[in-house]
Amino acid sequence: MRNEPRAFMLEGPDYVPSVYDHHLTRRLSAMAGQYADQAAYEQMLAGEDVTLYEVYELQRPQVAGELLHGISIVHPGKVGDEFFMTKGHFHTVLETGEIYTCLKGRGAMVMETPEGDWAVEELYPGRVLYVLPRWAHRSVNTGHEEDLVTFFVYPGNAGHDYGTIETQGFRKLVVERQEQMQIIDNPRWRERVASTGSA
Amino acid sequence: MRNEPRAFMLEGPDYVPSVYDHHLTRRLSAMAGQYADQAAYEQMLAGEDVTLYEVYELQRPQVAGELLHGISIVHPGKVGDEFFMTKGHFHTVLETGEIYTCLKGRGAMVMETPEGDWAVEELYPGRVLYVLPRWAHRSVNTGHEEDLVTFFVYPGNAGHDYGTIETQGFRKLVVERQEQMQIIDNPRWRERVASTGSA
Repeated sequence: MRNEPRAFMLEGPDYVPSVYDHHLTRRLSAMAGQYADQAAYEQMLAGEDVTLYEVYELQRPQVAGELLHGISIVHPGKVGDEFFMTKGHFHTVLETGEIYTCLKGRGAMVMETPEGDWAVEELYPGRVLYVLPRWAHRSVNTGHEEDLVTFFVYPGNAGHDYGTIETQGFRKLVVERQEQMQIIDNPRWRERVASTGSA
Repeated sequence: MRNEPRAFMLEGPDYVPSVYDHHLTRRLSAMAGQYADQAAYEQMLAGEDVTLYEVYELQRPQVAGELLHGISIVHPGKVGDEFFMTKGHFHTVLETGEIYTCLKGRGAMVMETPEGDWAVEELYPGRVLYVLPRWAHRSVNTGHEEDLVTFFVYPGNAGHDYGTIETQGFRKLVVERQEQMQIIDNPRWRERVASTGSA
Protein backbone atom coordinates (compact mmCIF):
# COMPACT_ATOMS: atom_id res chain seq x y z
CA MET A 1 0.00 0.00 0.00
CA ARG A 2 1.51 3.31 -1.06
CA ASN A 3 1.86 5.75 1.76
CA GLU A 4 1.33 8.81 -0.40
CA PRO A 5 -1.75 10.69 -1.44
CA ARG A 6 -3.37 8.84 -4.31
CA ALA A 7 -5.36 10.26 -7.19
CA PHE A 8 -7.44 8.43 -9.78
CA MET A 9 -10.02 9.14 -12.45
CA LEU A 10 -13.74 8.41 -12.45
CA GLU A 11 -14.86 8.78 -16.03
CA GLY A 12 -17.73 7.72 -18.20
CA PRO A 13 -19.00 5.68 -19.77
CA ASP A 14 -18.40 3.01 -17.10
CA TYR A 15 -16.78 4.97 -14.20
CA VAL A 16 -14.50 2.08 -13.20
CA PRO A 17 -11.71 3.82 -11.22
CA SER A 18 -8.49 4.20 -13.23
CA VAL A 19 -6.74 2.67 -10.18
CA TYR A 20 -8.17 0.14 -7.73
CA ASP A 21 -7.14 -2.72 -5.44
CA HIS A 22 -10.14 -5.06 -5.27
CA HIS A 23 -12.94 -6.01 -7.64
CA LEU A 24 -15.86 -7.80 -6.03
CA THR A 25 -18.61 -9.47 -8.11
CA ARG A 26 -21.90 -10.37 -6.42
CA ARG A 27 -24.07 -12.90 -8.23
CA LEU A 28 -27.69 -13.96 -7.85
CA SER A 29 -26.67 -17.08 -5.90
CA ALA A 30 -25.28 -14.88 -3.11
CA MET A 31 -28.73 -13.37 -2.51
CA ALA A 32 -30.67 -16.43 -1.33
CA GLY A 33 -33.66 -15.36 0.73
CA GLN A 34 -33.24 -11.67 -0.10
CA TYR A 35 -35.87 -11.31 -2.85
CA ALA A 36 -39.54 -11.45 -1.90
CA ASP A 37 -40.58 -13.61 -4.86
CA GLN A 38 -38.77 -16.85 -4.02
CA ALA A 39 -40.25 -18.74 -6.99
CA ALA A 40 -39.00 -16.09 -9.41
CA TYR A 41 -35.60 -16.19 -7.72
CA GLU A 42 -35.28 -19.97 -8.03
CA GLN A 43 -36.44 -19.94 -11.62
CA MET A 44 -33.99 -17.20 -12.57
CA LEU A 45 -31.10 -18.92 -10.78
CA ALA A 46 -31.87 -22.19 -12.62
CA GLY A 47 -31.30 -20.28 -15.85
CA GLU A 48 -28.11 -18.35 -15.08
CA ASP A 49 -26.28 -17.12 -12.03
CA VAL A 50 -26.23 -13.52 -13.26
CA THR A 51 -24.05 -10.79 -11.83
CA LEU A 52 -26.22 -8.35 -9.87
CA TYR A 53 -23.58 -5.87 -8.84
CA GLU A 54 -19.88 -5.13 -8.71
CA VAL A 55 -17.70 -3.13 -6.35
CA TYR A 56 -14.27 -1.61 -7.06
CA GLU A 57 -12.42 -0.71 -3.89
CA LEU A 58 -9.27 1.23 -3.10
CA GLN A 59 -7.49 -0.36 -0.18
CA ARG A 60 -6.57 1.52 2.98
CA PRO A 61 -6.08 0.42 6.60
CA GLN A 62 -9.40 -0.37 8.26
CA VAL A 63 -8.94 2.04 11.14
CA ALA A 64 -10.66 5.21 12.33
CA GLY A 65 -9.39 8.33 10.56
CA GLU A 66 -8.95 6.58 7.20
CA LEU A 67 -11.66 6.89 4.55
CA LEU A 68 -12.44 3.78 2.54
CA HIS A 69 -13.78 4.48 -0.92
CA GLY A 70 -14.71 3.00 -4.24
CA ILE A 71 -17.38 2.46 -6.82
CA SER A 72 -20.55 0.36 -6.71
CA ILE A 73 -22.16 -0.73 -9.98
CA VAL A 74 -25.64 -2.26 -9.77
CA HIS A 75 -26.75 -3.74 -13.08
CA PRO A 76 -30.31 -3.30 -14.37
CA GLY A 77 -32.81 -6.13 -13.99
CA LYS A 78 -35.52 -7.57 -11.78
CA VAL A 79 -36.26 -10.71 -9.78
CA GLY A 80 -40.03 -10.96 -10.16
CA ASP A 81 -41.10 -7.33 -9.83
CA GLU A 82 -38.23 -6.42 -7.47
CA PHE A 83 -35.30 -4.49 -8.86
CA PHE A 84 -31.70 -5.70 -8.75
CA MET A 85 -30.08 -4.44 -5.56
CA THR A 86 -27.11 -4.83 -3.23
CA LYS A 87 -27.22 -7.07 -0.17
CA GLY A 88 -27.30 -3.99 2.03
CA HIS A 89 -25.79 -3.73 5.47
CA PHE A 90 -25.46 -1.97 8.76
CA HIS A 91 -21.99 -0.84 9.72
CA THR A 92 -20.46 -3.03 12.44
CA VAL A 93 -19.54 0.20 14.24
CA LEU A 94 -23.12 1.46 14.09
CA GLU A 95 -22.23 5.10 14.73
CA THR A 96 -20.49 5.58 11.36
CA GLY A 97 -21.99 7.25 8.28
CA GLU A 98 -21.38 6.90 4.56
CA ILE A 99 -21.54 9.30 1.63
CA TYR A 100 -22.74 8.25 -1.81
CA THR A 101 -22.41 10.31 -4.97
CA CYS A 102 -24.40 9.06 -7.94
CA LEU A 103 -22.41 9.14 -11.18
CA LYS A 104 -24.68 7.29 -13.58
CA GLY A 105 -28.10 5.72 -13.88
CA ARG A 106 -31.18 5.93 -11.77
CA GLY A 107 -31.87 4.26 -8.47
CA ALA A 108 -32.86 4.42 -4.86
CA MET A 109 -31.14 4.02 -1.53
CA VAL A 110 -33.28 2.04 0.90
CA MET A 111 -32.41 2.81 4.51
CA GLU A 112 -33.57 1.98 8.02
CA THR A 113 -32.47 2.20 11.64
CA PRO A 114 -32.60 -0.45 14.37
CA GLU A 115 -35.25 1.77 16.00
CA GLY A 116 -37.67 1.38 13.08
CA ASP A 117 -37.17 4.59 11.10
CA TRP A 118 -36.94 4.12 7.36
CA ALA A 119 -36.24 6.28 4.32
CA VAL A 120 -35.86 5.84 0.57
CA GLU A 121 -33.91 8.48 -1.38
CA GLU A 122 -33.68 8.71 -5.13
CA LEU A 123 -30.29 8.49 -6.83
CA TYR A 124 -29.42 10.06 -10.16
CA PRO A 125 -26.32 11.74 -11.56
CA GLY A 126 -25.18 14.72 -9.49
CA ARG A 127 -27.13 13.64 -6.45
CA VAL A 128 -25.18 13.22 -3.21
CA LEU A 129 -26.65 11.28 -0.29
CA TYR A 130 -25.36 11.25 3.26
CA VAL A 131 -26.40 8.00 4.93
CA LEU A 132 -26.30 8.94 8.62
CA PRO A 133 -24.65 6.84 11.31
CA ARG A 134 -27.03 4.03 12.49
CA TRP A 135 -28.79 3.70 9.10
CA ALA A 136 -28.57 0.39 7.20
CA HIS A 137 -28.48 0.99 3.46
CA ARG A 138 -29.03 -0.84 0.17
CA SER A 139 -28.68 0.49 -3.40
CA VAL A 140 -31.38 -0.43 -5.90
CA ASN A 141 -31.17 0.09 -9.67
CA THR A 142 -34.59 1.33 -10.72
CA GLY A 143 -33.58 1.85 -14.35
CA HIS A 144 -34.19 -0.54 -17.19
CA GLU A 145 -31.06 -0.37 -19.29
CA GLU A 146 -28.30 1.55 -17.54
CA ASP A 147 -26.06 0.56 -14.68
CA LEU A 148 -26.48 2.48 -11.41
CA VAL A 149 -23.02 3.75 -10.51
CA THR A 150 -22.23 5.39 -7.16
CA PHE A 151 -19.00 6.55 -5.53
CA PHE A 152 -18.95 5.74 -1.81
CA VAL A 153 -16.84 6.98 1.12
CA TYR A 154 -17.02 5.62 4.67
CA PRO A 155 -14.86 5.62 7.79
CA GLY A 156 -12.07 3.04 7.84
CA ASN A 157 -13.27 1.42 11.07
CA ALA A 158 -16.94 1.08 10.03
CA GLY A 159 -16.99 -2.61 9.08
CA HIS A 160 -19.91 -4.41 7.42
CA ASP A 161 -22.67 -6.23 9.25
CA TYR A 162 -24.48 -8.15 6.48
CA GLY A 163 -25.98 -10.73 8.85
CA THR A 164 -28.72 -8.60 10.36
CA ILE A 165 -30.18 -7.78 6.95
CA GLU A 166 -29.75 -11.36 5.70
CA THR A 167 -31.83 -12.50 8.68
CA GLN A 168 -34.56 -9.88 8.82
CA GLY A 169 -34.41 -8.06 5.48
CA PHE A 170 -35.28 -4.39 5.02
CA ARG A 171 -38.69 -3.06 6.05
CA LYS A 172 -39.31 -1.70 2.56
CA LEU A 173 -38.93 -3.19 -0.92
CA VAL A 174 -38.57 -1.32 -4.20
CA VAL A 175 -40.62 -2.91 -6.97
CA GLU A 176 -42.05 -2.07 -10.35
CA ARG A 177 -45.81 -2.35 -10.76
CA GLN A 178 -47.92 -0.87 -13.55
CA GLU A 179 -44.62 0.32 -15.06
CA GLN A 180 -43.91 2.50 -12.02
CA MET A 181 -41.41 2.30 -9.21
CA GLN A 182 -43.17 1.64 -5.94
CA ILE A 183 -42.04 1.37 -2.34
CA ILE A 184 -43.93 -1.39 -0.56
CA ASP A 185 -43.81 -3.07 2.83
CA ASN A 186 -41.68 -6.20 2.93
CA PRO A 187 -44.29 -8.90 3.66
CA ARG A 188 -41.67 -11.18 5.15
CA TRP A 189 -40.04 -8.66 7.43
CA ARG A 190 -42.04 -9.10 10.66
CA GLU A 191 -42.32 -12.82 10.20
CA ARG A 192 -38.55 -13.23 10.31
CA VAL A 193 -38.14 -11.11 13.40
CA ALA A 194 -40.91 -13.07 15.13
CA SER A 195 -39.33 -16.42 14.22
CA THR A 196 -35.99 -15.23 15.54
CA GLY A 197 -37.62 -14.31 18.82
CA SER A 198 -39.45 -17.60 19.29
CA ALA A 199 -36.68 -19.98 18.18
CA MET B 1 -30.16 19.45 12.33
CA ARG B 2 -32.32 16.81 10.65
CA ASN B 3 -31.70 13.34 11.92
CA GLU B 4 -32.51 11.66 8.63
CA PRO B 5 -30.39 10.81 5.61
CA ARG B 6 -30.00 13.92 3.51
CA ALA B 7 -29.64 14.18 -0.25
CA PHE B 8 -28.70 17.19 -2.33
CA MET B 9 -27.63 18.06 -5.86
CA LEU B 10 -24.24 19.10 -7.15
CA GLU B 11 -24.85 20.52 -10.60
CA GLY B 12 -23.12 22.76 -13.05
CA PRO B 13 -22.43 25.41 -13.92
CA ASP B 14 -21.50 26.51 -10.38
CA TYR B 15 -21.90 23.30 -8.29
CA VAL B 16 -23.18 25.14 -5.23
CA PRO B 17 -25.00 22.40 -3.25
CA SER B 18 -28.79 22.61 -3.60
CA VAL B 19 -28.87 22.41 0.23
CA TYR B 20 -26.23 23.71 2.66
CA ASP B 21 -25.85 25.08 6.20
CA HIS B 22 -22.84 27.41 6.07
CA HIS B 23 -21.27 29.63 3.43
CA LEU B 24 -17.74 30.82 4.24
CA THR B 25 -16.02 33.53 2.17
CA ARG B 26 -12.25 33.93 2.45
CA ARG B 27 -10.82 37.24 1.23
CA LEU B 28 -7.31 38.40 0.44
CA SER B 29 -7.03 40.17 3.80
CA ALA B 30 -7.29 36.81 5.59
CA MET B 31 -4.11 35.59 3.88
CA ALA B 32 -1.54 37.98 5.33
CA GLY B 33 1.92 36.43 5.14
CA GLN B 34 0.77 33.49 3.03
CA TYR B 35 1.89 34.69 -0.42
CA ALA B 36 5.58 34.80 -1.23
CA ASP B 37 5.46 38.17 -3.00
CA GLN B 38 4.54 40.45 -0.11
CA ALA B 39 4.78 43.62 -2.22
CA ALA B 40 2.33 42.24 -4.77
CA TYR B 41 0.04 41.18 -1.91
CA GLU B 42 0.05 44.64 -0.31
CA GLN B 43 -0.50 46.36 -3.63
CA MET B 44 -3.41 44.11 -4.53
CA LEU B 45 -5.02 44.51 -1.11
CA ALA B 46 -4.77 48.31 -1.39
CA GLY B 47 -6.88 48.02 -4.55
CA GLU B 48 -9.61 45.60 -3.41
CA ASP B 49 -10.06 42.93 -0.78
CA VAL B 50 -11.03 40.29 -3.33
CA THR B 51 -12.65 36.97 -2.51
CA LEU B 52 -10.11 34.17 -3.02
CA TYR B 53 -12.31 31.22 -2.20
CA GLU B 54 -15.64 30.11 -0.81
CA VAL B 55 -16.77 27.03 1.07
CA TYR B 56 -20.29 25.62 1.33
CA GLU B 57 -20.68 23.17 4.20
CA LEU B 58 -23.36 20.77 5.30
CA GLN B 59 -23.51 20.64 9.06
CA ARG B 60 -23.15 17.46 11.08
CA PRO B 61 -21.89 16.75 14.60
CA GLN B 62 -18.11 17.06 14.82
CA VAL B 63 -17.54 13.58 16.17
CA ALA B 64 -15.81 10.44 14.92
CA GLY B 65 -18.09 8.33 12.69
CA GLU B 66 -19.74 11.34 11.07
CA LEU B 67 -18.51 12.56 7.68
CA LEU B 68 -18.34 16.32 7.17
CA HIS B 69 -18.75 17.40 3.57
CA GLY B 70 -19.19 20.31 1.26
CA ILE B 71 -17.87 22.26 -1.68
CA SER B 72 -14.76 24.40 -2.02
CA ILE B 73 -14.63 27.04 -4.79
CA VAL B 74 -11.26 28.68 -5.44
CA HIS B 75 -11.54 31.61 -7.83
CA PRO B 76 -8.98 32.19 -10.58
CA GLY B 77 -6.26 34.78 -10.10
CA LYS B 78 -2.72 35.38 -8.91
CA VAL B 79 -0.85 37.35 -6.26
CA GLY B 80 2.36 38.15 -8.09
CA ASP B 81 3.08 34.90 -9.94
CA GLU B 82 1.46 32.72 -7.26
CA PHE B 83 -1.99 31.30 -7.95
CA PHE B 84 -5.02 31.94 -5.73
CA MET B 85 -5.22 29.20 -3.12
CA THR B 86 -6.81 28.16 0.15
CA LYS B 87 -5.14 28.77 3.51
CA GLY B 88 -4.45 25.07 3.80
CA HIS B 89 -4.32 23.11 7.02
CA PHE B 90 -3.36 20.04 8.93
CA HIS B 91 -6.18 18.24 10.69
CA THR B 92 -6.11 18.76 14.44
CA VAL B 93 -6.51 15.00 14.79
CA LEU B 94 -3.53 14.35 12.55
CA GLU B 95 -4.45 10.72 11.79
CA THR B 96 -7.52 11.63 9.72
CA GLY B 97 -7.72 11.70 5.90
CA GLU B 98 -9.85 13.63 3.42
CA ILE B 99 -11.24 12.84 0.00
CA TYR B 100 -11.55 15.46 -2.73
CA THR B 101 -13.45 15.03 -5.97
CA CYS B 102 -12.82 17.68 -8.60
CA LEU B 103 -16.02 18.86 -10.26
CA LYS B 104 -14.84 21.83 -12.31
CA GLY B 105 -11.74 23.73 -13.32
CA ARG B 106 -8.08 22.95 -13.10
CA GLY B 107 -5.85 22.99 -10.10
CA ALA B 108 -3.41 21.33 -7.79
CA MET B 109 -3.45 20.00 -4.26
CA VAL B 110 -0.25 20.88 -2.41
CA MET B 111 0.46 18.49 0.44
CA GLU B 112 3.10 17.77 3.04
CA THR B 113 3.67 15.83 6.23
CA PRO B 114 5.27 16.95 9.50
CA GLU B 115 8.11 14.53 8.60
CA GLY B 116 9.04 16.47 5.45
CA ASP B 117 7.37 14.45 2.68
CA TRP B 118 5.58 16.56 0.09
CA ALA B 119 3.39 15.93 -2.94
CA VAL B 120 1.47 17.96 -5.50
CA GLU B 121 -1.40 16.30 -7.36
CA GLU B 122 -3.28 17.76 -10.29
CA LEU B 123 -7.02 18.34 -10.04
CA TYR B 124 -9.41 18.35 -12.95
CA PRO B 125 -12.99 17.15 -13.46
CA GLY B 126 -13.44 13.45 -12.69
CA ARG B 127 -10.23 13.25 -10.69
CA VAL B 128 -10.51 11.95 -7.12
CA LEU B 129 -7.73 12.51 -4.62
CA TYR B 130 -7.31 10.79 -1.28
CA VAL B 131 -5.30 13.04 1.03
CA LEU B 132 -3.90 10.53 3.53
CA PRO B 133 -3.95 11.00 7.28
CA ARG B 134 -1.01 13.19 8.43
CA TRP B 135 -0.86 15.25 5.18
CA ALA B 136 -1.55 18.99 5.30
CA HIS B 137 -3.31 20.15 2.15
CA ARG B 138 -4.05 23.30 0.18
CA SER B 139 -6.07 23.69 -3.06
CA VAL B 140 -4.64 25.93 -5.76
CA ASN B 141 -6.54 27.16 -8.83
CA THR B 142 -4.07 26.92 -11.71
CA GLY B 143 -6.62 27.98 -14.33
CA HIS B 144 -7.05 31.45 -15.73
CA GLU B 145 -10.78 31.89 -16.07
CA GLU B 146 -12.68 29.09 -14.38
CA ASP B 147 -13.33 28.43 -10.72
CA LEU B 148 -11.74 25.31 -9.23
CA VAL B 149 -14.59 23.40 -7.58
CA THR B 150 -14.02 20.35 -5.37
CA PHE B 151 -16.32 18.23 -3.22
CA PHE B 152 -14.66 17.25 0.06
CA VAL B 153 -15.39 14.60 2.70
CA TYR B 154 -13.53 14.23 6.01
CA PRO B 155 -14.10 12.58 9.38
CA GLY B 156 -16.30 14.52 11.78
CA ASN B 157 -13.64 14.66 14.51
CA ALA B 158 -10.77 15.82 12.25
CA GLY B 159 -10.75 19.53 13.16
CA HIS B 160 -8.65 22.19 11.41
CA ASP B 161 -5.18 23.29 12.44
CA TYR B 162 -4.56 26.44 10.37
CA GLY B 163 -1.93 27.83 12.71
CA THR B 164 0.96 25.55 11.73
CA ILE B 165 0.68 26.53 8.06
CA GLU B 166 0.15 30.22 8.92
CA THR B 167 3.43 30.12 10.84
CA GLN B 168 5.64 28.03 8.58
CA GLY B 169 3.86 27.91 5.21
CA PHE B 170 4.03 24.96 2.82
CA ARG B 171 7.38 23.69 1.55
CA LYS B 172 6.25 24.14 -2.06
CA LEU B 173 4.55 26.98 -3.92
CA VAL B 174 2.60 26.78 -7.17
CA VAL B 175 3.41 29.66 -9.48
CA GLU B 176 3.11 30.60 -13.13
CA ARG B 177 6.33 31.43 -14.98
CA GLN B 178 6.83 31.60 -18.73
CA GLU B 179 3.10 30.88 -19.00
CA GLN B 180 3.55 27.50 -17.31
CA MET B 181 2.55 26.13 -13.93
CA GLN B 182 5.64 25.44 -11.87
CA ILE B 183 6.22 23.93 -8.46
CA ILE B 184 8.99 25.77 -6.65
CA ASP B 185 10.54 25.72 -3.19
CA ASN B 186 9.03 28.21 -0.78
CA PRO B 187 11.96 30.56 -0.13
CA ARG B 188 10.49 31.64 3.20
CA TRP B 189 9.79 28.19 4.54
CA ARG B 190 13.04 27.41 6.36
CA GLU B 191 13.49 30.97 7.49
CA ARG B 192 10.24 30.87 9.42
CA VAL B 193 11.01 27.58 11.09
CA ALA B 194 14.46 28.92 12.06
CA SER B 195 13.05 32.15 13.45
CA THR B 196 10.53 30.16 15.46
CA GLY B 197 13.35 28.10 16.91
CA SER B 198 15.56 31.06 17.79
CA ALA B 199 12.91 33.40 19.17
